[in-house]
Amino acid sequence: MDYSKFFSADVPSFLRSPVRDIFKKVDLNAIYSFAGGYPNASTFPLGEMEHLAGEVVRKYGARSMQYGATQGVTDLRKVLSDRYGVPIENIQITTSSQQGIDVCSRILLDPGDVVIAENPVYLGALQSFRAYRATVVSPSDVTDKAKFIYVIPDFNNPSGKTKTLEERKKIVEFARERDLIIVEDSPYKELRYEGSDVPSIYSLAPERTLHLGSFSKIFAPGFRLGWIFGPEELLEQIYICKQCLDLCPPIFDQYMAAEFMGSGALDANLLKSKELYKGKRDYMLSLLEKYMPEGVTWTHPEGGLFLWLELPEKVDTVAMYDSALAAGVAYVAGSFFYTDGSHRNTMRLNFSFLDTDRMEAGIALLAEQIRLVLKS
Amino acid sequence: MDYSKFFSADVPSFLRSPVRDIFKKVDLNAIYSFAGGYPNASTFPLGEMEHLAGEVVRKYGARSMQYGATQGVTDLRKVLSDRYGVPIENIQITTSSQQGIDVCSRILLDPGDVVIAENPVYLGALQSFRAYRATVVSPSDVTDKAKFIYVIPDFNNPSGKTKTLEERKKIVEFARERDLIIVEDSPYKELRYEGSDVPSIYSLAPERTLHLGSFSKIFAPGFRLGWIFGPEELLEQIYICKQCLDLCPPIFDQYMAAEFMGSGALDANLLKSKELYKGKRDYMLSLLEKYMPEGVTWTHPEGGLFLWLELPEKVDTVAMYDSALAAGVAYVAGSFFYTDGSHRNTMRLNFSFLDTDRMEAGIALLAEQIRLVLKS
Repeated sequence: MDYSKFFSADVPSFLRSPVRDIFKKVDLNAIYSFAGGYPNASTFPLGEMEHLAGEVVRKYGARSMQYGATQGVTDLRKVLSDRYGVPIENIQITTSSQQGIDVCSRILLDPGDVVIAENPVYLGALQSFRAYRATVVSPSDVTDKAKFIYVIPDFNNPSGKTKTLEERKKIVEFARERDLIIVEDSPYKELRYEGSDVPSIYSLAPERTLHLGSFSKIFAPGFRLGWIFGPEELLEQIYICKQCLDLCPPIFDQYMAAEFMGSGALDANLLKSKELYKGKRDYMLSLLEKYMPEGVTWTHPEGGLFLWLELPEKVDTVAMYDSALAAGVAYVAGSFFYTDGSHRNTMRLNFSFLDTDRMEAGIALLAEQIRLVLKS
Repeated sequence: MDYSKFFSADVPSFLRSPVRDIFKKVDLNAIYSFAGGYPNASTFPLGEMEHLAGEVVRKYGARSMQYGATQGVTDLRKVLSDRYGVPIENIQITTSSQQGIDVCSRILLDPGDVVIAENPVYLGALQSFRAYRATVVSPSDVTDKAKFIYVIPDFNNPSGKTKTLEERKKIVEFARERDLIIVEDSPYKELRYEGSDVPSIYSLAPERTLHLGSFSKIFAPGFRLGWIFGPEELLEQIYICKQCLDLCPPIFDQYMAAEFMGSGALDANLLKSKELYKGKRDYMLSLLEKYMPEGVTWTHPEGGLFLWLELPEKVDTVAMYDSALAAGVAYVAGSFFYTDGSHRNTMRLNFSFLDTDRMEAGIALLAEQIRLVLKS
């Protein structure tokens, strides 16, 4: 039976995620994976989680298992409001931050519309924009079809770069001049290992910014939860859209997050996670120094989960991927984050997932693979 | 600031759910609610859930909190495969059955496309089809723009009706003749209180059916989980689309469901739920007999969660809604389930949510409201 005639005209624009596809085929624990943006398993406090789960059942009972409000449970919106100083009316809970990107795209984008973003761009966002047949262009190529600017200002995925306050103000100025929405994707903001926090774009332009947050990096990604801060007029359409998408975010998960955050466990755990990740970043930097051949350069991110490598022009990270994986090491080729598929001599490395004792063997193996290509 | 210029051309087609909107404003426990399709709170075995949550943390540890596969965790797909005899390759886990409807619509529908469905139609499905600017028409009005047939064959929401095997075979025949997909929405199939199970449409035409299942009525809706059975070629596009939607279904929730189902707790609990709901249905039928004025008729469903009432022509259930709610009783006006907004003298009543001791007062109050309209 030929199914192709049934598909929506959007389907040919769907991009597969090479990251997700790896996870479909490979047991991550059987290889050295620098591919996904996975938190380290040790940042999930198991004993505390077990206690917390019991506490949610005892404290909220059937409410934690019943359907709930589309905008999210009040308890969770309240702790977010307290933590970030945003009124509860301006908070929508999402079923993952990825859903946040998707629902913003869903209410804003038509085929042929334009999203403004600087290369390289987070793959999950590119997937979402393309799935609505929007085109992604750099700020200098802005057209009248532009709807919003997409930006990860803190510890960008994949580049690791952080926008200064001046740069954020310029983005706001640009958006106000051209009358554009800003979608500020901010999953890593709390994971800063040095330097000082820079105010969010949302705080500079709350009237036109949809700010996306995530519980995946400060709590646990297995509870699929994120949030959107934004103007009520935009959140109202997101609320109606979300009725269609999944009625409401997972309820038990929301009470888990609310208890974790409200009890102070989040802050205590975050402090430990940041110390762990700072150590991992520094260790990874030292390993790159030790193992990488000449001509390889990398970023020094102030936070987040990723390093960005630039390799000699000769190294095609897409072409060498299969043999690297066969040798037991995974990364994400940098060109997947480029709207034009260029920069095939770059790669993104995650430093949070692998335990420190496995990191050295993984980087040594990766360096060996790069040397093989350089020698060929 | 005027936000209207930013919205996608789909947005004006978004339908609000009057059911969800009620829940936004009203504390369900403060009124007599026959509105939502909420399971009764007593069907959530709290002690068992508490044990289960601890067990998931102890047994799966960090895996239950980490990102997971887009198609769903293998443990859950495996227990579904065992229970329903469907190969694991033909199973995609969804973040709620509503997401199942949405993702099917997303990969299949373009503006102007046609969905075939008999009135009255489940509101959440209507919302989803309309949001993609598809038109819903009855089987007799099928056109070349038709993509799929949407049907709830068991204890239909809202009508409560069940399709016979003959009727199912006719749907399959129709779909094969016109070369259409069938979206079989099946959240209530396991909730049968009398008569015998009728084979699913999926079992009759697995090559062209997307069968949607839900954990909301057999486990708990607060864990937002459902599934799709379907041909691999269609599931492959759903898999890619779901990467955009939310990366993966909630992981902790999936292990909870897998343990609940795999341990046999689901079957034991389902037996109790069915007994409870059968009693509630029968009690509701007796209350309608006792309180409703002449000229009101209702269905006698063999399962599911809903009764469907037809009232004298004079009673406009949309118009009387606000005063009924102010008096303390909620229902869903039947016309919301009609593609043309007709049948304003009908309503849907849920019999699962209210405890038996509150049901009589609720039905008496509703009957009083109807009498007031009839007398006016």
